[in-house]
Amino acid sequence: MKLATLRNGTRDGQLVVVSRDLTRAIPVPAIAPTLQAALDDWSRIAPLLLEVSDRLAAGDVGGALPFDPQAALAPLPRSHHWVDGSAYVNHVELVRKARAADMPPSFWTDPLVYQGGSDDFIPPTAEVPFPSEDYGIDLEGELAVITDDVPMLTAVDEAASHIKLLMLVNDWSLRNLIPAELAKGFGFYQSKPATSFGPCAITPDELGEAWQGCKVHLPLLSHINGTLFGQPNAGVDMTFDFAQLIAHVTRTRRLGAGTVIGSGTVSNCDRSSGSSCLAETRALEQIAKGKPTTPFLCFGDRVRIEMFGRDGTSLFGAIDQQVIAAQARFTRD
Amino acid sequence: MKLATLRNGTRDGQLVVVSRDLTRAIPVPAIAPTLQAALDDWSRIAPLLLEVSDRLAAGDVGGALPFDPQAALAPLPRSHHWVDGSAYVNHVELVRKARAADMPPSFWTDPLVYQGGSDDFIPPTAEVPFPSEDYGIDLEGELAVITDDVPMLTAVDEAASHIKLLMLVNDWSLRNLIPAELAKGFGFYQSKPATSFGPCAITPDELGEAWQGCKVHLPLLSHINGTLFGQPNAGVDMTFDFAQLIAHVTRTRRLGAGTVIGSGTVSNCDRSSGSSCLAETRALEQIAKGKPTTPFLCFGDRVRIEMFGRDGTSLFGAIDQQVIAAQARFTRD
Repeated sequence: MKLATLRNGTRDGQLVVVSRDLTRAIPVPAIAPTLQAALDDWSRIAPLLLEVSDRLAAGDVGGALPFDPQAALAPLPRSHHWVDGSAYVNHVELVRKARAADMPPSFWTDPLVYQGGSDDFIPPTAEVPFPSEDYGIDLEGELAVITDDVPMLTAVDEAASHIKLLMLVNDWSLRNLIPAELAKGFGFYQSKPATSFGPCAITPDELGEAWQGCKVHLPLLSHINGTLFGQPNAGVDMTFDFAQLIAHVTRTRRLGAGTVIGSGTVSNCDRSSGSSCLAETRALEQIAKGKPTTPFLCFGDRVRIEMFGRDGTSLFGAIDQQVIAAQARFTRD
Repeated sequence: MKLATLRNGTRDGQLVVVSRDLTRAIPVPAIAPTLQAALDDWSRIAPLLLEVSDRLAAGDVGGALPFDPQAALAPLPRSHHWVDGSAYVNHVELVRKARAADMPPSFWTDPLVYQGGSDDFIPPTAEVPFPSEDYGIDLEGELAVITDDVPMLTAVDEAASHIKLLMLVNDWSLRNLIPAELAKGFGFYQSKPATSFGPCAITPDELGEAWQGCKVHLPLLSHINGTLFGQPNAGVDMTFDFAQLIAHVTRTRRLGAGTVIGSGTVSNCDRSSGSSCLAETRALEQIAKGKPTTPFLCFGDRVRIEMFGRDGTSLFGAIDQQVIAAQARFTRD
């Protein structure tokens, strides 16, 4: 099942069921007005949404509209909890190596996570405003899961059942703000602005055999200005799978329905597949040539992130966005 | 105006207007079902809520119920953004001094903030479960503001107008998890579990002359097991006021309506007023006696946090909670 949220003038948008090929959408106001409302009562609502999805798959398109990603908000336009991991530890190791910093061995066994802003998730084709190019604007292509209510102290083997949906993410990062901010000791805030999401949130079964061990065994494609930048496989070199991330984040708290948990930038040890963020490319350049040569993003640059199933279908639809200069007092649409 | 949220079986509860003396409450479903709904459309909704508040103040109590803090959820049972500052820098300096760590001079000019969990705000009188006493359970008594939509790049002098409500906070901290977590470089997560809030969210005018310069010039009282633990004045030694915190957090992002911004643990240089967290008491003991002697909280301990107006009225009602052992798989109520 694929779900999306269409712009309707409200903050949380209009929930729709989307056809597998992303061509059609059916609004479902009688089932759930919004994706958060569906997640709040998922065990009751999900079977009703699935019936609509099955009808669409059977070719019964009564009530369906053409699905236009331009009309889509993020699947959850806002959520109550967005925690992003850094589960591809080889990426962390590489970036540290580039700045001649050791990596504690515990990083291979104890996940890194940070909590991001969840009041303003960016729609998949919206322009993305930043105050300055000097901040070192970077993409981070990744995947995320959405959970239902998850108890405190959930064990890894219980965690998988709490994964209800998956999404495509661009966790925008402002690299030049990171060193000073992390040096303060409290983690990221200004250096991790609002996050972008792909058009559809999909149930794990949409991935078929590519969903194994709570990992997505498919390449994640990132293009910058129309040129392929990277296609690392999200199922390879993921040190902590999504179940392990859930166990980690429930050590001292329970999670509310609609919690979004990200994988961190997808990265493979095999460098021939490219990267999902410029920081990694620049780290490789630093190591090989003594200095980075690839610039960060500039105003006007376009970033496209997408993932295809083994049958060639776009799984989530694409994040396809242009970086722009923030006007002073950039506020609610 | 004072607002609260009563338990009604839903996740976001039932918005009520509360009398200034906290004795009566009027449900306002025809105006706004929840506080988030009110904040989403504050400029239209607030005057309607104020009419109800004025009626209550005039003694017209038609439709009013007795206000029972035991029946209250957090004013916002969940929000989309909870960012907590550490605005009482003398507290930071003291804690660092106790562990013989220097404090960068920039801490006096560049606010520290971290992002906390906003999917599970703890009701004012609920039991608060933690997995282990060994984690170093501590209170952090503080204040927070709730904003409307705030543009990116909001200047300090524009920020005050975005402060719509204030709340009382206990930002529970697990001190023994903090050193290892901060050493990883990504900030707090497991060491900052769910946060507690006082019964009422109040408009700044309820503070009268105690609201000046975007600070609350009143003592914040904390009791542990019925004994006064501290009563530092929240308006004294607050290095960054709430307007400065808003300007800081909008440097690279806009804020969605309902964003909660905390002050950090209230702390005065004058130590005779006591502290709002055990970490500070222990830091003072470390400096004076070479080792801390006050223990962290144990299961069964009660923490009460409250603030009184100059006329002796309880402004927000009290946070009054017992620390308990988390049962495995502690989940949604």
